[in-house]
Amino acid sequence: MKFLRTIHAEDMEDIATGGAILGTGGGGDPYVGKLMAQQAIKQYGPVNLVDIDELPDDALVVPVCMMGAPTVMTEKLPQGEELINAFRALEQLLGRKIDAVLCGEAGGVNSTTPFVVAAMAGLPLVDGDGMGRAYPELQMVTFTMHGVSATPMVLCDDKGNSLVLETVSNAWTERLARAATVEMGGSALLAFYSMSGAVAKKAIVRGTLTLCSELGRTLREAKAGHVDPVNAIVDKLEADVIFHGRIKDIERRTVGGFARGTARFEGVEEWKGHSFRLDFQNEFLMAERDGEIIVTTPDLITVLDAESGLPVTADALRYGLRLKALAMPSNPQWLTPAGIELVGPRYFGYDTDYREYFAR
Amino acid sequence: MKFLRTIHAEDMEDIATGGAILGTGGGGDPYVGKLMAQQAIKQYGPVNLVDIDELPDDALVVPVCMMGAPTVMTEKLPQGEELINAFRALEQLLGRKIDAVLCGEAGGVNSTTPFVVAAMAGLPLVDGDGMGRAYPELQMVTFTMHGVSATPMVLCDDKGNSLVLETVSNAWTERLARAATVEMGGSALLAFYSMSGAVAKKAIVRGTLTLCSELGRTLREAKAGHVDPVNAIVDKLEADVIFHGRIKDIERRTVGGFARGTARFEGVEEWKGHSFRLDFQNEFLMAERDGEIIVTTPDLITVLDAESGLPVTADALRYGLRLKALAMPSNPQWLTPAGIELVGPRYFGYDTDYREYFAR
Repeated sequence: MKFLRTIHAEDMEDIATGGAILGTGGGGDPYVGKLMAQQAIKQYGPVNLVDIDELPDDALVVPVCMMGAPTVMTEKLPQGEELINAFRALEQLLGRKIDAVLCGEAGGVNSTTPFVVAAMAGLPLVDGDGMGRAYPELQMVTFTMHGVSATPMVLCDDKGNSLVLETVSNAWTERLARAATVEMGGSALLAFYSMSGAVAKKAIVRGTLTLCSELGRTLREAKAGHVDPVNAIVDKLEADVIFHGRIKDIERRTVGGFARGTARFEGVEEWKGHSFRLDFQNEFLMAERDGEIIVTTPDLITVLDAESGLPVTADALRYGLRLKALAMPSNPQWLTPAGIELVGPRYFGYDTDYREYFAR
Repeated sequence: MKFLRTIHAEDMEDIATGGAILGTGGGGDPYVGKLMAQQAIKQYGPVNLVDIDELPDDALVVPVCMMGAPTVMTEKLPQGEELINAFRALEQLLGRKIDAVLCGEAGGVNSTTPFVVAAMAGLPLVDGDGMGRAYPELQMVTFTMHGVSATPMVLCDDKGNSLVLETVSNAWTERLARAATVEMGGSALLAFYSMSGAVAKKAIVRGTLTLCSELGRTLREAKAGHVDPVNAIVDKLEADVIFHGRIKDIERRTVGGFARGTARFEGVEEWKGHSFRLDFQNEFLMAERDGEIIVTTPDLITVLDAESGLPVTADALRYGLRLKALAMPSNPQWLTPAGIELVGPRYFGYDTDYREYFAR
């Protein structure tokens, strides 16, 4: 098998930074996952990143993820063992050796968690994921649109509890796994959406782990080369700066394991005199400028520190922070009717249709 | 194997009535379970009741139960298929044929649900259970005190979802199964606490299905023979009438899947001028007379219609009903320190120790 690249412990820095950008404010802090991945790579060896086309059609591919509210996750450092436990238990249940690890969600902490399993299991990691970003619910993956069942799914906690789910739909998997995760203390590790190489070739969002790595490198190099880091990211992503401002007000609440809220900004410099509002449910899902909705999910909204260009999570938003908000086009799979039904603004309870920001 | 008795569809009437008496106000309405059991017996044949001593020490014995809040369960008639699905899935997981079905809880709906599985699987049903009554949480079984693990446990709903739990304690099984049950719409079917014949001989409360049957027959015969039905039950159970009164006030709320509340009574006839209070969390757990606590869990408190002697669930308590409250001694296993820790008044949040009512 030809590998794209071999990922060493030090490469995880860029991937985690890029994962935070694709995290669009949510997906959990990649810092924790980065530490776990670095630890696993040091102990078990580097991870080979592979293009999905390198895998045979009959290969068995399994995504792994951490589930939970970012606000809880930061207080509770998970161990790599739980991830590999879920993975091994699913392998045993399927009765067949798994050939490659897949990333479920390339945004946030889950951009790094698959490296833990790939290192520990000595398996290649597919360059891609099921979202091209972060989303708060586990049926919100392109896999769902390709008829891949989330179950059998194995879910483990840090105490030694585990459960195997078999459900009638991926939405039911989300409901039952969420209830278990909340009960387990707010975070859990899971292996699910097992699929063949043939299905994965159609169902994944390709190249997202390489993209994470390049985004991280772009920021790092901009800093070293005294280039404006936000502009460097904008160029790399074909993104748009949609606002530059200071937070003047922030409301948040945790509902059923999700961090929900609204942040309001007042413009500075080129946006002085303008207002901006961000709505989030773990991730940033809707942006309003001067009272008008301009960007909605599934397009990506991410927020960077105006000076350092470092991504800021919804959880880290604080009164007075000066930030730049970016819009980035989503993977086209999300713009189909099935995609909009899964992750469009109405699913999240916003009374608006998808707002097209990017001419395509 | 020598059987104690063969249970036909018509025998389920007495068992369900007796199950409602041992339900101590909770455990779910046995009417639903009775219908399911009668249906299964008609379709698959009668059920052989067996004394636990008839089973070999290396026999595999598996209890089945319905889980959920009685207030929800009455609106949602479960199918026998879900029970047998959980049972068969656990059998497959254990990799060994199950030799006998066991009753988890002889009070309420679960006094009848094991008959459904025994009939469908063509297996003997052990005469006994894990409580000798009803209790609201699934770690509250004598099995727990004998070191039997509730897991592996299979839990199924009526939609086709299922989960397999492996937990570090029976209290964790309760937490995770409860969360799943609430999410599944309030009720679920489960197979758990698999154990050997040798362990079951020590761990079960013996003879409780026969007791259910005899309690039902006692009430039925009292009615036919124009004997006072409440007195007939009192004689049969070595119970005491602790109050006779009318409900003057009732408070209830549903918290985390449990029906909780308090009922207040004013005395009539021999108890005229006295007051009485019942606290329940699904089951009646504490009785106060004239402001003094007189009976607490684990002793059984049950409430009968003063005229018909029919048991009344906490859910059916209404302003103005004239009722007689009975106290019955619990199985001695519950009066050990481990038993009191599992089901004593303090576990349920009452600020009182177990109150000894019966001289032993």
